[in-house]
Amino acid sequence: DSNDSPRTITLIPGDGIGPEISNSVQKIFEAAEVPISWESVDVTPVKSPDGKFRIPLRAIESVTKNRIGLKGPLATPVGKGHQSLNLALRKQFNLFANVRPCKTLEGYKTPYENVDLVTIRENTEGEYSGIEHTIVPGVVQSIKLITEHASLRVSEYAFLYAKLHKREKVTVVHKANIMRLSDGLFLKSARQVAEKYPEIKFEEMYLDTVCLKMVQDPTQFDCLVMPNLYGDILSDLCAGLIGGLGLTPSGNIGENGAAIFEAVHGTAPDIAGQDKANPTALLLSSVMMLRHLHMFDKADRIEKACFDTIKDGKVLTGDLGGKSKCSEYTSEICRRIKDSS
Amino acid sequence: DSNDSPRTITLIPGDGIGPEISNSVQKIFEAAEVPISWESVDVTPVKSPDGKFRIPLRAIESVTKNRIGLKGPLATPVGKGHQSLNLALRKQFNLFANVRPCKTLEGYKTPYENVDLVTIRENTEGEYSGIEHTIVPGVVQSIKLITEHASLRVSEYAFLYAKLHKREKVTVVHKANIMRLSDGLFLKSARQVAEKYPEIKFEEMYLDTVCLKMVQDPTQFDCLVMPNLYGDILSDLCAGLIGGLGLTPSGNIGENGAAIFEAVHGTAPDIAGQDKANPTALLLSSVMMLRHLHMFDKADRIEKACFDTIKDGKVLTGDLGGKSKCSEYTSEICRRIKDSS
Ligand SMILES: CC(C)[C@H](C(=O)O)[C@@H](O)C(=O)O
Ligand SMILES: CC(C)[C@H](C(=O)O)[C@@H](O)C(=O)O
Repeated sequence: DSNDSPRTITLIPGDGIGPEISNSVQKIFEAAEVPISWESVDVTPVKSPDGKFRIPLRAIESVTKNRIGLKGPLATPVGKGHQSLNLALRKQFNLFANVRPCKTLEGYKTPYENVDLVTIRENTEGEYSGIEHTIVPGVVQSIKLITEHASLRVSEYAFLYAKLHKREKVTVVHKANIMRLSDGLFLKSARQVAEKYPEIKFEEMYLDTVCLKMVQDPTQFDCLVMPNLYGDILSDLCAGLIGGLGLTPSGNIGENGAAIFEAVHGTAPDIAGQDKANPTALLLSSVMMLRHLHMFDKADRIEKACFDTIKDGKVLTGDLGGKSKCSEYTSEICRRIKDSS
Repeated sequence: DSNDSPRTITLIPGDGIGPEISNSVQKIFEAAEVPISWESVDVTPVKSPDGKFRIPLRAIESVTKNRIGLKGPLATPVGKGHQSLNLALRKQFNLFANVRPCKTLEGYKTPYENVDLVTIRENTEGEYSGIEHTIVPGVVQSIKLITEHASLRVSEYAFLYAKLHKREKVTVVHKANIMRLSDGLFLKSARQVAEKYPEIKFEEMYLDTVCLKMVQDPTQFDCLVMPNLYGDILSDLCAGLIGGLGLTPSGNIGENGAAIFEAVHGTAPDIAGQDKANPTALLLSSVMMLRHLHMFDKADRIEKACFDTIKDGKVLTGDLGGKSKCSEYTSEICRRIKDSS
């Protein structure tokens, strides 16, 4: 590993099953002797003097200092006017690229086999600009904002990612036939970056066509880059192909290596605290994190132990079709890690 | 049938394979003795004195007079600044609802069985408003326009459609968690209409969640209503589940019964004129048209003959896995219609 000195990571356990699955990841990291220490913070919004709710300062300071976070699911605060906390975090730390790999898990049965793709989503603008107006009652406009800066930045990241992860093709997903200026700018930016990477195949495809082809044969895709909303849609679609949000990791990447890795599934309040939760999505997110930190060897070992446990099929949580508890599944992964060293 | 007096329908054969598949539909309608006469028009844009390209007046007059059209695939005119002709037609005749049923075809193998749903897409606004600006170089905004008028109108149509077609549930698809005002207005409008139809189940779901659930189990969906862009995406996704755009019909519905039914696949220039094309999407669109005209008996007979031909599997075009020509497939459907009378 390129970096074996202990490093502090901000841990946001989250709500519902968040603490359980975070605990599972911590145990597995111990078993793998990953040289990091955790700094746990709570991000439940607190009321500021101006009456608005904000992420607690301690959480912001922790991520700002450590630059890397791992995050469990967050409940959306109840009450009108609350923005999603997930979005607030992406915004606060200018995490401009949302990366979601989707890989078939051997042993977990879905109609799709050999899926191995990654969606890279612009994470700061598009339909998520937050700019909306009621022009007159009953007539509303939302602004889809596309900038060259953000478009180039996410395309640069996509090609760099493709190169680092030895991926062969980048597909830019767009509707520039409809949004000629905005998606046109995104497309133009992707083309511009593509020219700098002649060794990586570059493909352009309409979003609707991607959706159609994706459900017919996802193995034709490799790395995909796209504006914010399209990424929201496609990443969930792809997760569905391989088994759902309980199995897919996610990373939000910012400038200068700052990043928050997160499980994007819900808080599952119905099973919280019962040792029934499936920690796989958060664990695989932490594996992405390790690779981001260039701890490739640790990442590979943890990932393999997780994949092997699923493939083996004997110790699985309920949603994975098994009868084991979260803690048993965790122990099984730890055992395999120790056996492999 | 409620209406057996001959009625004139505008036929837009379209480009590429358009004329062949239109011809196929005409032959099948003859075999079924459908009491309509065709008025064929060309919609290739012509240059107006102001230098802009426009749909020929004769085509506009024909649809305006007949109020019902059947349309093959259109090539997008080459050259910058040309809007899609498909969109131009929807706009010209204010066709506010795009209806795309998706039903598993027995005998045509896909991983999905028993799919039977319909997407109903707002067809005039949303991201398709056509309003875009470059604010400063490198910064673009596209306007997503949502009006109460159009939202109520398409929801009304969706519930009416559900009722007429004995469907049990309408799901409104939205991202009102992100676009609180615009998708919020769409959602509110759908809720308002839903109240008038207590006999039809009403469900609200985020677009990303719909995509995920759709690929996992499409049989959980029935009738779905949504803003323009979401419909573009979801209808293609659903088409992919049952075999692609060569098998799925589509209708664009306007005020006072005006409507254009169309095959939404491409013009397939590579096989045009070779008697290899698959007319199924246009044929099933014409079946939708017959139901729209309340010619239910003719619609059922033609549809059954088409479905039976596919199920039987002996006389199929190449894309359907067979070796027959378009004309042979057409004759087989005609034969079955005649045998059934
Ligand atoms: C929770 C929600 C605001 C979010 C989004 O729309 O981006 C989620 O769907 C995601 O993909 O992370
Ligand atoms: C051809 C294109 C402009 C059109 C659209 O985006 O609506 C097509 O994808 C459709 O779904 O009919």
